[in-house]
Amino acid sequence: MTASRAPILDRIAGPSDLRALPDADLKTLAGELRREVIEAVSVTGGHLGSSLGVVELAVALHAVFDTPRDKLIWDVGHQCYPHKILTGRRDRIRTLRQEGGLSGFTKRSESEFDPFGAAHSSTSISAALGFTIGRDMGRPTGDAIAVIGDGAISAGMAYEAMNNAGAEGRRLFVILNDNEMSIAPPVGAMSKYTSRLGAAPLERLEAALPGPLRDQARRARALVMGRTGGTGTLFEELGFAYMGPIDGHDMDQLLSVLRSARTRATGPVLIHCCTVKGKGYAPAESAADKYHGVGSFDVASGAQAKKRANAPSYTSVFGTALADEAGRDPRIVAVTAAMPAGTGLDIMADRFPARVFDVGIAEQHGVTFAAGMAASGLKPFCAIYSTFLQRGYDQVVHDVALQNLPVRFAIDRAGLVGADGATHAGAFDIGFLAALPNFTVMAAGDEAELMHMVATAAAHDGGPIAFRYPRGEGRGTALPERGVPLEIGKGRIIREGSDVALLSFGAHLGVCEAAAETLAAQGISATLADARFAKPLDRALIRQLLRHHKALVTVEQGARGGFGAMVLHDLANDGLLDGRCQIRCMTLPDRFIEQAAPDAMYAEAGLTAVDIAAMAAEAVGKRIGAIS
Amino acid sequence: MTASRAPILDRIAGPSDLRALPDADLKTLAGELRREVIEAVSVTGGHLGSSLGVVELAVALHAVFDTPRDKLIWDVGHQCYPHKILTGRRDRIRTLRQEGGLSGFTKRSESEFDPFGAAHSSTSISAALGFTIGRDMGRPTGDAIAVIGDGAISAGMAYEAMNNAGAEGRRLFVILNDNEMSIAPPVGAMSKYTSRLGAAPLERLEAALPGPLRDQARRARALVMGRTGGTGTLFEELGFAYMGPIDGHDMDQLLSVLRSARTRATGPVLIHCCTVKGKGYAPAESAADKYHGVGSFDVASGAQAKKRANAPSYTSVFGTALADEAGRDPRIVAVTAAMPAGTGLDIMADRFPARVFDVGIAEQHGVTFAAGMAASGLKPFCAIYSTFLQRGYDQVVHDVALQNLPVRFAIDRAGLVGADGATHAGAFDIGFLAALPNFTVMAAGDEAELMHMVATAAAHDGGPIAFRYPRGEGRGTALPERGVPLEIGKGRIIREGSDVALLSFGAHLGVCEAAAETLAAQGISATLADARFAKPLDRALIRQLLRHHKALVTVEQGARGGFGAMVLHDLANDGLLDGRCQIRCMTLPDRFIEQAAPDAMYAEAGLTAVDIAAMAAEAVGKRIGAIS
Repeated sequence: MTASRAPILDRIAGPSDLRALPDADLKTLAGELRREVIEAVSVTGGHLGSSLGVVELAVALHAVFDTPRDKLIWDVGHQCYPHKILTGRRDRIRTLRQEGGLSGFTKRSESEFDPFGAAHSSTSISAALGFTIGRDMGRPTGDAIAVIGDGAISAGMAYEAMNNAGAEGRRLFVILNDNEMSIAPPVGAMSKYTSRLGAAPLERLEAALPGPLRDQARRARALVMGRTGGTGTLFEELGFAYMGPIDGHDMDQLLSVLRSARTRATGPVLIHCCTVKGKGYAPAESAADKYHGVGSFDVASGAQAKKRANAPSYTSVFGTALADEAGRDPRIVAVTAAMPAGTGLDIMADRFPARVFDVGIAEQHGVTFAAGMAASGLKPFCAIYSTFLQRGYDQVVHDVALQNLPVRFAIDRAGLVGADGATHAGAFDIGFLAALPNFTVMAAGDEAELMHMVATAAAHDGGPIAFRYPRGEGRGTALPERGVPLEIGKGRIIREGSDVALLSFGAHLGVCEAAAETLAAQGISATLADARFAKPLDRALIRQLLRHHKALVTVEQGARGGFGAMVLHDLANDGLLDGRCQIRCMTLPDRFIEQAAPDAMYAEAGLTAVDIAAMAAEAVGKRIGAIS
Repeated sequence: MTASRAPILDRIAGPSDLRALPDADLKTLAGELRREVIEAVSVTGGHLGSSLGVVELAVALHAVFDTPRDKLIWDVGHQCYPHKILTGRRDRIRTLRQEGGLSGFTKRSESEFDPFGAAHSSTSISAALGFTIGRDMGRPTGDAIAVIGDGAISAGMAYEAMNNAGAEGRRLFVILNDNEMSIAPPVGAMSKYTSRLGAAPLERLEAALPGPLRDQARRARALVMGRTGGTGTLFEELGFAYMGPIDGHDMDQLLSVLRSARTRATGPVLIHCCTVKGKGYAPAESAADKYHGVGSFDVASGAQAKKRANAPSYTSVFGTALADEAGRDPRIVAVTAAMPAGTGLDIMADRFPARVFDVGIAEQHGVTFAAGMAASGLKPFCAIYSTFLQRGYDQVVHDVALQNLPVRFAIDRAGLVGADGATHAGAFDIGFLAALPNFTVMAAGDEAELMHMVATAAAHDGGPIAFRYPRGEGRGTALPERGVPLEIGKGRIIREGSDVALLSFGAHLGVCEAAAETLAAQGISATLADARFAKPLDRALIRQLLRHHKALVTVEQGARGGFGAMVLHDLANDGLLDGRCQIRCMTLPDRFIEQAAPDAMYAEAGLTAVDIAAMAAEAVGKRIGAIS
């Protein structure tokens, strides 16, 4: 077998090998790389469409820039699979998103070729600008290149960074990866603008583009050029030199423009690169979501493996319950930040399209927009994942809590989330919301409870209220016809015992039930209560548990400083921490938990049924035997 | 005395009176209103310059729009004094920013004419859009008008809101109050752009502007029109109809344009209004900061009363200490979000201008920018007030904590801040930072400690570290020549006693000393310790206090779920809450504390020396006598 017939990819241990290749081989390499990505993701699942869109770009960037000395920063990072394969991680690419495997995003601890990790969007330009300061102050770092999609660049944070980068005027490269898709079809005026055909004179390069790409390039060019064309693009006004648009799947164009930019740039440069999400894999290109996130699939047919669900997901239970409430109450409206399907709001949008608002990747605006709607007398449900609500925290404090406005926060993806790993964990919301005056904070013990909490939130017009629930399937609990508003600040007893009390807040209720069984098997009688509320606390219930048990163990799917802390604080200041009942608080540990199946992540976190039973037993001076 | 000679202002009980006046009287009214604002602020202090800039605008808006049915939303709200005088609050205007008096910002609970309160910037367009949805869905609300400055509109959140408002296409009014000033001289590329003279053809209205305003209008117009002029302004591309620029001090122009807009608008309209900060008061107009925020002053001369300081402020101690550290370590850089003087970074900027980065009102970008600098090997100090750090919380979690990057957070204005009231309180940072893995969290007990913490942060390259300190003067503690790095996670004993232990975290240390004295006077011997660290906790110190005292009281200037909660959690899970030592945690209460002098606010919060002594005494079953 001659070397020329063996895949070029087999000879690429890292970008330096790639840089030794003639340009013609880079095209071949891109084809091999695309096939490798498809093969790998067919096994692991993952963000296929985005990665297929940047195969040529990844090759070209590593061919032209001196990575890892030059810092290549992929925004969001979910399009990084080709990059990972090219940077020494090909042998592990089939471990993507698996326990102990490669992250589905870029990650500093994984490779020196990942200088700045991501997962949340729109951070890359800020980070890249930071690296350019380091370079200019003599740190051993080269150029910084941010690759950012058209969805991510429309977020406020990216705008702030572009504005600052333009003012700094330092040599910096921003690649606008324009595929006219964020996760959902893009929203917002900027996107409408992008999609409008302008009368701008087109550049020479565009003429060389294939048909569909040419249209897209024209639209994208309209965005960055302004409708009137000429030299005054928005990016140029912000101080960037503008290059493009170029065909992001044409290796010659890519190499030529990137080399030219690298040679000539003295300040910030924006390279406008048009790509097709799912490029080169017909089933992805033709799918509406371009295989944004897929499970494992059959390469030949594109058929995705369907996971058999035992119970409806919390997300769908929420979405259906809210749509039903909206059917009964015309004041109910809903807000999502670019996640209509992810949050389940698409169900309400199907029935009441005028009452669901997708604000784009714009959590700050989304929260205050909801606050404005609440101030006008509407009943907004703001559905934002726990991890992304961090983006709107000041707005939650300043616009919602301070003004005591009845915004309802539906907090999906609370707790550990599985394959998306630590960056997407919903770990901090209990604490950062329960600290706020005026807030009511709930967590659903099961999917029927979630329905009741939707009803509770709909009925609660006295101030802000939040309810959290996890990613994934419910527990299979029978669902009521409709939710019934809960009494604010009242928990419930699930099971009565006499030795120890387990007080669960949220979706670890099922695990706590198993813990109670485990304890029972060891002769320790356990009461189990579902707190339902972290704020206001059910102080009567807590005192009752305290009086009648030798130990009280709180359990929550969140970080320290949340539910358990509120219970402790309340008891301490009433002088009730008197030792007659031992107290323990089980939370996520003080470290980030790496990707794995959620159950495995909770095991790593020390929150299995056995962990809980052992903690309760220890608190009453016993040990539970080993569980096989 | 005839009615015509009495001030028109005396006849204005509310906007409806104003709307009954002929236009000519509105000009007279504006003059009277300006004098009233100057007189009032000369007594109370406050945001004079901004309020003087919008006197005519406030009159015109209330004359043209049907407030309070129409919702007038002042961004930030610190320019609202003329608005307050016109809307029934003239009799209380000399209580501005005083205990029990009018807020220095707009506030829903204060008046139906304040439909959406503010204090943090860039929220008004989001809120206004929310009201337009309410109107369109049949709520009893009219039009929504957001008034936003050129500084505030450059923040990411405002961009998100404009983008969404443009896409929605609903009738909505945004007044761009363009005075070419945010709090500090504006930064960022957008501002450079604004300030550049374009070759755009000027509109008819501009020709009517007075000289200096004409230049400004030309520059501002360049921003919104694009350099090439024509019809394609940025705002128009976002879906807004653009009107202006107009002279914001010319009542005829204002009335004419606002009336025209109100009559004709079918979608979102941006009215570009050029004003002069400090307008009509010579000392303000000629001051560099246009009297942005002033104490009381002499109206005739403009001379501001100097408050005699007993000790340097925490801010200046921080600024000087950091500049000194920067002199010793060339890797130290600093980031501020539009607050170079407020944070004390101006001191470092004077010595090392190239190493201090003002990113504008852009906390999200600022935090991640600092993270990028840290990743490149620099030592960034990110100096952001506690309340504004909420704006960058996701970036603190996702870009700093998750990646364990050594960004140093200098958190000024921690705790209660006085006249700025609840919106500016730094109440939540202890909890929202201590919950994060990898973080080190400190608070300074006095200004010498602050110097040590600056040195500690400079030396700590192992991960993120934060230190908090309050607004205002230090305690007069002797300052060392230079700070010395503290041992991470080690507190200190301040005073030895035997009955109760007070464990202070942060700047309430002095109050705790007074509490220990109070206890001593009542025959209760108190140990006082300064925890220094909320994370990692000094577990040995805490256990030592626990073993040797009958009660342990933690004290912090922050909300529930912070330092005390971390102590409780740690002790609970070690089985140490056994009742042998009673524990109490003193925090800010679960409500927002209204403006007053900081001491009065802490009294309202239940955190005086007597409160602390009483809590400690109660914990050991005693009562302290009344203190006169």
